[in-house]
Amino acid sequence: MKIFDEIESEVQSYARSFPRVFHRAQGAYLFDQEGNQYLDFLAGAGTLNYGHNNPVFKEKLIEYILEDGITHGLDMHTKAKGEFLETFKQYILEPRGLEYMVQFTGPTGTNAVEAALKLARNVTGRENVISFTNGFHGCSLAALSVTGNSHHRGAAGTSLGAGVSTVPFDGYLGDGIETTEYLDKVLSDSSSGVDTPAAVIVETVQGEGGINAASVGWLQNLAAVCKKHDVLLIVDDIQAGCGRTGTFFSFEESGITPDIVTMSKSLSGYGLPFAVVLMRPELDEWKPGEHNGTFRGNNLAFVTAKAAIETYWKDDAFEKDIKRKGDYIHSRTQEIVNEFGEGNFILQGRGMMRGINCVSGELAGKITKKCFQNGLMIETSGADDQVVKFLCPLIISDEDLKKGIDILERAIRDVCAKEDDMPEAKSYFDENYDIAV
Amino acid sequence: MKIFDEIESEVQSYARSFPRVFHRAQGAYLFDQEGNQYLDFLAGAGTLNYGHNNPVFKEKLIEYILEDGITHGLDMHTKAKGEFLETFKQYILEPRGLEYMVQFTGPTGTNAVEAALKLARNVTGRENVISFTNGFHGCSLAALSVTGNSHHRGAAGTSLGAGVSTVPFDGYLGDGIETTEYLDKVLSDSSSGVDTPAAVIVETVQGEGGINAASVGWLQNLAAVCKKHDVLLIVDDIQAGCGRTGTFFSFEESGITPDIVTMSKSLSGYGLPFAVVLMRPELDEWKPGEHNGTFRGNNLAFVTAKAAIETYWKDDAFEKDIKRKGDYIHSRTQEIVNEFGEGNFILQGRGMMRGINCVSGELAGKITKKCFQNGLMIETSGADDQVVKFLCPLIISDEDLKKGIDILERAIRDVCAKEDDMPEAKSYFDENYDIAV
Amino acid sequence: MKIFDEIESEVQSYARSFPRVFHRAQGAYLFDQEGNQYLDFLAGAGTLNYGHNNPVFKEKLIEYILEDGITHGLDMHTKAKGEFLETFKQYILEPRGLEYMVQFTGPTGTNAVEAALKLARNVTGRENVISFTNGFHGCSLAALSVTGNSHHRGAAGTSLGAGVSTVPFDGYLGDGIETTEYLDKVLSDSSSGVDTPAAVIVETVQGEGGINAASVGWLQNLAAVCKKHDVLLIVDDIQAGCGRTGTFFSFEESGITPDIVTMSKSLSGYGLPFAVVLMRPELDEWKPGEHNGTFRGNNLAFVTAKAAIETYWKDDAFEKDIKRKGDYIHSRTQEIVNEFGEGNFILQGRGMMRGINCVSGELAGKITKKCFQNGLMIETSGADDQVVKFLCPLIISDEDLKKGIDILERAIRDVCAKEDDMPEAKSYFDENYDIAV
Amino acid sequence: MKIFDEIESEVQSYARSFPRVFHRAQGAYLFDQEGNQYLDFLAGAGTLNYGHNNPVFKEKLIEYILEDGITHGLDMHTKAKGEFLETFKQYILEPRGLEYMVQFTGPTGTNAVEAALKLARNVTGRENVISFTNGFHGCSLAALSVTGNSHHRGAAGTSLGAGVSTVPFDGYLGDGIETTEYLDKVLSDSSSGVDTPAAVIVETVQGEGGINAASVGWLQNLAAVCKKHDVLLIVDDIQAGCGRTGTFFSFEESGITPDIVTMSKSLSGYGLPFAVVLMRPELDEWKPGEHNGTFRGNNLAFVTAKAAIETYWKDDAFEKDIKRKGDYIHSRTQEIVNEFGEGNFILQGRGMMRGINCVSGELAGKITKKCFQNGLMIETSGADDQVVKFLCPLIISDEDLKKGIDILERAIRDVCAKEDDMPEAKSYFDENYDIAV
Repeated sequence: MKIFDEIESEVQSYARSFPRVFHRAQGAYLFDQEGNQYLDFLAGAGTLNYGHNNPVFKEKLIEYILEDGITHGLDMHTKAKGEFLETFKQYILEPRGLEYMVQFTGPTGTNAVEAALKLARNVTGRENVISFTNGFHGCSLAALSVTGNSHHRGAAGTSLGAGVSTVPFDGYLGDGIETTEYLDKVLSDSSSGVDTPAAVIVETVQGEGGINAASVGWLQNLAAVCKKHDVLLIVDDIQAGCGRTGTFFSFEESGITPDIVTMSKSLSGYGLPFAVVLMRPELDEWKPGEHNGTFRGNNLAFVTAKAAIETYWKDDAFEKDIKRKGDYIHSRTQEIVNEFGEGNFILQGRGMMRGINCVSGELAGKITKKCFQNGLMIETSGADDQVVKFLCPLIISDEDLKKGIDILERAIRDVCAKEDDMPEAKSYFDENYDIAV
Repeated sequence: MKIFDEIESEVQSYARSFPRVFHRAQGAYLFDQEGNQYLDFLAGAGTLNYGHNNPVFKEKLIEYILEDGITHGLDMHTKAKGEFLETFKQYILEPRGLEYMVQFTGPTGTNAVEAALKLARNVTGRENVISFTNGFHGCSLAALSVTGNSHHRGAAGTSLGAGVSTVPFDGYLGDGIETTEYLDKVLSDSSSGVDTPAAVIVETVQGEGGINAASVGWLQNLAAVCKKHDVLLIVDDIQAGCGRTGTFFSFEESGITPDIVTMSKSLSGYGLPFAVVLMRPELDEWKPGEHNGTFRGNNLAFVTAKAAIETYWKDDAFEKDIKRKGDYIHSRTQEIVNEFGEGNFILQGRGMMRGINCVSGELAGKITKKCFQNGLMIETSGADDQVVKFLCPLIISDEDLKKGIDILERAIRDVCAKEDDMPEAKSYFDENYDIAV
Repeated sequence: MKIFDEIESEVQSYARSFPRVFHRAQGAYLFDQEGNQYLDFLAGAGTLNYGHNNPVFKEKLIEYILEDGITHGLDMHTKAKGEFLETFKQYILEPRGLEYMVQFTGPTGTNAVEAALKLARNVTGRENVISFTNGFHGCSLAALSVTGNSHHRGAAGTSLGAGVSTVPFDGYLGDGIETTEYLDKVLSDSSSGVDTPAAVIVETVQGEGGINAASVGWLQNLAAVCKKHDVLLIVDDIQAGCGRTGTFFSFEESGITPDIVTMSKSLSGYGLPFAVVLMRPELDEWKPGEHNGTFRGNNLAFVTAKAAIETYWKDDAFEKDIKRKGDYIHSRTQEIVNEFGEGNFILQGRGMMRGINCVSGELAGKITKKCFQNGLMIETSGADDQVVKFLCPLIISDEDLKKGIDILERAIRDVCAKEDDMPEAKSYFDENYDIAV
Repeated sequence: MKIFDEIESEVQSYARSFPRVFHRAQGAYLFDQEGNQYLDFLAGAGTLNYGHNNPVFKEKLIEYILEDGITHGLDMHTKAKGEFLETFKQYILEPRGLEYMVQFTGPTGTNAVEAALKLARNVTGRENVISFTNGFHGCSLAALSVTGNSHHRGAAGTSLGAGVSTVPFDGYLGDGIETTEYLDKVLSDSSSGVDTPAAVIVETVQGEGGINAASVGWLQNLAAVCKKHDVLLIVDDIQAGCGRTGTFFSFEESGITPDIVTMSKSLSGYGLPFAVVLMRPELDEWKPGEHNGTFRGNNLAFVTAKAAIETYWKDDAFEKDIKRKGDYIHSRTQEIVNEFGEGNFILQGRGMMRGINCVSGELAGKITKKCFQNGLMIETSGADDQVVKFLCPLIISDEDLKKGIDILERAIRDVCAKEDDMPEAKSYFDENYDIAV
């Protein structure tokens, strides 16, 4: 650990929650240098939907590297890229009746968001963009300007406001207030102070903002308002996409068709940096090289992304499995909330993107800390870190899923039931708790 | 090729200059699907200083993947990251007397630039940043705001100007005008309209801007002006770093010590996405997670980056080799310019980052097009794409280096000597030109 | 008229609604060059609360000019300024228990708003400002950024959004939704995307935005939310102040005490350019000359402003008179709305700042046009110019007030009752209608 | 004085330099409440070119007020406005071969600048504007963004940089460097980081920036660069116009024709708030009411402005007189500089807009302070207040002009010659110095 203290910047975040030096990983487990194993309910913040080092993809990756397949290709045509595009078209776009052009941006989510915002502004000739309360889209400047979190916003050191209007997300104003009506009103009112926007950018389930799931009806209303006002709809599917909510795209259930979609995180399948922007063909007004980036041709990611699609998305078996596990998480967490929530805890999310809103960030932090003591890596989310966030690999075994929730349940019981009088819990590692090696 | 036409966005750039489907690559060569080989004087726009799929790094990479080393680690401590840091400290920082903290940003250059600008602004509490004419720092919004190129700037669709003042780079105002004096004057003058900046961001050799190399004296003056006005000096070493100019950091020759350094491109050695920000320890005022990014723990890159440093930077042999080859390039291109430049062509750059300024973008384009017909991939740079840019792998063999320059020389001769009356050159592939397979 | 066509810019606005060349004015009447008289229910857009060329102030003004009193004094101390300050303190501030410092800005409302925003931002060190839907604060850039109207916003030609968040005004989201709760929520939520603001800027009755009057309760809630979050409350009392709503300051009825108040329009009493910013003493952190303006010492305005206060604000007689007339306007317009509004028209405003919302801008335009044909100058307001706006001089005689409303009533009857079948109304001037000379 | 201490804001500036309570003024003199007289070499910061309370204009003003001429006319046509326009056309525009449309903005210089910038941006569809080092254009946000002074800029509390690039004014880079060539270069270079601007905004003589006079050749080059790049040229003639430099417009000598001109300060002649924007007819693309302002119809100013033009600009007698006096100031100050400047002092300006650059702000401050002790009001200018600025009324008598310069000369002698060893000078008032009453 010494080298990290010595020369790694203070900006570290997860390393503080999980103060181990990790070495290997497989499926739903990470292993530290001492060989201890940890059940992973964080999954690279949603990047490892198919688990760590998925063996099927690994084989393809090794094969490609061994044959000296191009690693770094800028935006040049390569066999690996072509095959990814074919696969993506055949198994993702066509079965869903979607016609999109694919832009390879720099291989990070924030880069895809930057590109999407540029495109929307250039195509429409408008500057303003609608973002939502508790939205999170990245930490580069334009992405940050549509991100709600003040911790991140405050780090910019320069003006963020230009060309962004924030409106309330689904449910933000309480039950019974359909916030898309507010959006419709300000867009209909030439004196509202909200300039006609190029686009609306939205997450169907807000990952960092607290696992807030928009309802199907709200998404449909949002799409209708966008259409009515000739405003582009950008779905940022970076965290909720790639099956996390139960379908490949998180918006499938609502039946809407966004004009632009950003994808990253689990797209490569193997945790390799990769990001794309999908856009309706008429919107593809990019001029050559207008938006670029050195690593937009990360060919290793093309190889594993293709493998992921071929392995999991050729039929609906995987979707059904996600749904089944999602239902299990829901029912287990419902019981936990009923038993320990004292009427305060709230369940959030959908599919395998779930959260328990503990209202208090301090409480949620105690719970996740205790989980880690017991071998479960799980994080919090939300403005005050008040939501315990489930992001386990979608391919997790039923046994491991149960085990993880069991640990969580015990942690919540320990923290909530006896918070005042119980002695500091001993680590379950000390007690030879079963998941510890 | 069909799939690219069908669903890849029009934003493609290099794919237009080099319209082939590439598959494999090794050292200084790419191979297309038909097996034709191309000598690579582009090197991933400076990302492949150690050549494609360097066999030493490849071995380490395969080994790491096979043992299920963590691929994606967010910002958690991992064995691979720790070893990279140890190696970087031992062979890069310590021998050069540099004390820097290392921040792992999202693994693209533009992300590192965004982080560097945030840090400088937060530490100083100032908003303005000084950028230079013809500077290029990336395409996300804050990086774009310090980038000179109007093609890129114009794509933002929103205001770029806030908090950036552009001043003339070395030589911009002609010989005999030391532009750091202008900078000193506007910073000394409380009524200049140039607000006291947080930082100056500079490339020692402007890669995209036309291979404009700042002189040692100018860099020293720049550092002195920064110090005088208590302004942070950021060297963006993304393209010029990692040995390109002859030393690991491009600023070593000048003896200056930047406050902040951004690195990416060839840092991973293998073309894998990777980027860091180096900062003087006193500047590391980051709060946990203030700047984040899903792929800031691209562990495969840590493995190859360590291998690259261990292989090439343990002693000064590599530096000497770069210098020798750089001199060769210089003398060969000098001859070419003398013979064909008609007094107009200008040599630019230093080390193995060189360019021939052909003044006309049209002319430079004809030259690089003809090179490609003859099996050499080489690109242009500069505001009008008027500079033929040498970015061959640093590890290129003498033979291949000679071969590449020979092709270039022939192309220039063909284009310049007989531009008006010669028939359209047949492709050398058709003529079984020797470098074609 | 020829000279206006020849060389006056197309930017003209009121000159299009009232296409005459006016020459003289007295009390509630304007007279054109031909001697025709027009009853003025526009009153310089709220600048002539005391009527045109009020004879009492006129005498003081003539006297001052004759004795060569200083006309233009920059910000130097002058007898006229001192006497204005004394009078303002004695009859306005002290009786209301208000302690404010007075800043003389450039003598236009927009300039006072610019100064108020600067002050709030400097004192708090924050950039964001909360503005409201349908707010109007002026046409210079910072004032424009807090103005809702897209017609004005669109003319800026540069980014407006930086550092401003627009939230819904009282009633904007319909009955039963207290929009200050929304404001409280976004300010309480660190992930709302609404950065903690320096200030909230609000009109108690939105003049240009459609005569929308905030309720007493809403203003009290707004003040409480500001206090809770340590945000400055700026009341822009430029149009609603100086007695227009029944009290000198429009916020008196609500019992709140703004941190900063902007005043202009009727402040000089005589229609002379004048504007001030009032601020709580602790906020007066201005450095000498930080905000300046050549005409901030328009001493003629000091003279008439003093006369206006002494004449109308020494006791509560004027307030009572405004209330009485306001009630008359209300009851008369209520009858009109009941008779002709077909359930659509809505009464708005309070005091002598009233409006009939005709829902349709086209309809409202026909009404005011017909009014003008009959000798009444009255204008529209609101996002779609859908509100017929009453801004008659506060000192109007009962007879003239009745006459004006009679003309309006007739216009509404003509326009609404027989809109489809009636012939184009002849001008009442042609028919020797009684108010024409 | 008590009331000023009690409730006037700390923002006061001139009131600190001249701590008296003034009451009357006539021609070149102000009188305080005690009857002391002060010779005015400040002239309302250039607003009182025709002296205080010019008796000819005063007569017209009184007459107009007595007959109840309209005081406040919004933008409606009035007899007074029409007559001003006729006069302006006949005696100002036509004799100079200028075709301009006239826009009446809010009656302050900064408002005219805001309007001019809007117009330029809207007509061209571009955002960037070129401003110059040491330029001053006002304190509302857009005007501030093109102003160089950090004292004013720093007060904005929000981003200023958007859409403005500052380039060096004439002489800023030293002799022999023609800064318009730098401007031409950055506008010709698509990678300069200086986006093609809507307009250049320039003062021919920088008033607040230190009485820096652009040469005729530089202005011609600037106009040529603007034309070459299809960029609008805005001359801000607010301080240098209305005869201050010897001709009505300050740019007449150079023979250039700006696309847009802003005027204010001495335009009304009597110190009354007044401002206009002049624009080439093709640029008058304003939509009705796009830029407005309550006091844009300050009819009293129209009356005095007409009188000023008729009195002084019907023939060239006034121009010749200004030139003669300007030459006198120049030769007197040349002698003073030669005798006391020790080779450091520099003469600046042209016509009757002159300055002595004392290099040190402290020194200049001592000089002006001593002048005031001796009955002369004169101010400093420049980034460090290092320039003693001559802005006496253009109509000053030869005797008073000599008297003022005599006082200044004595002050400089006192301050410079014996700075170290002389006792603190007694006030000349105490010594019955001849100009004191």
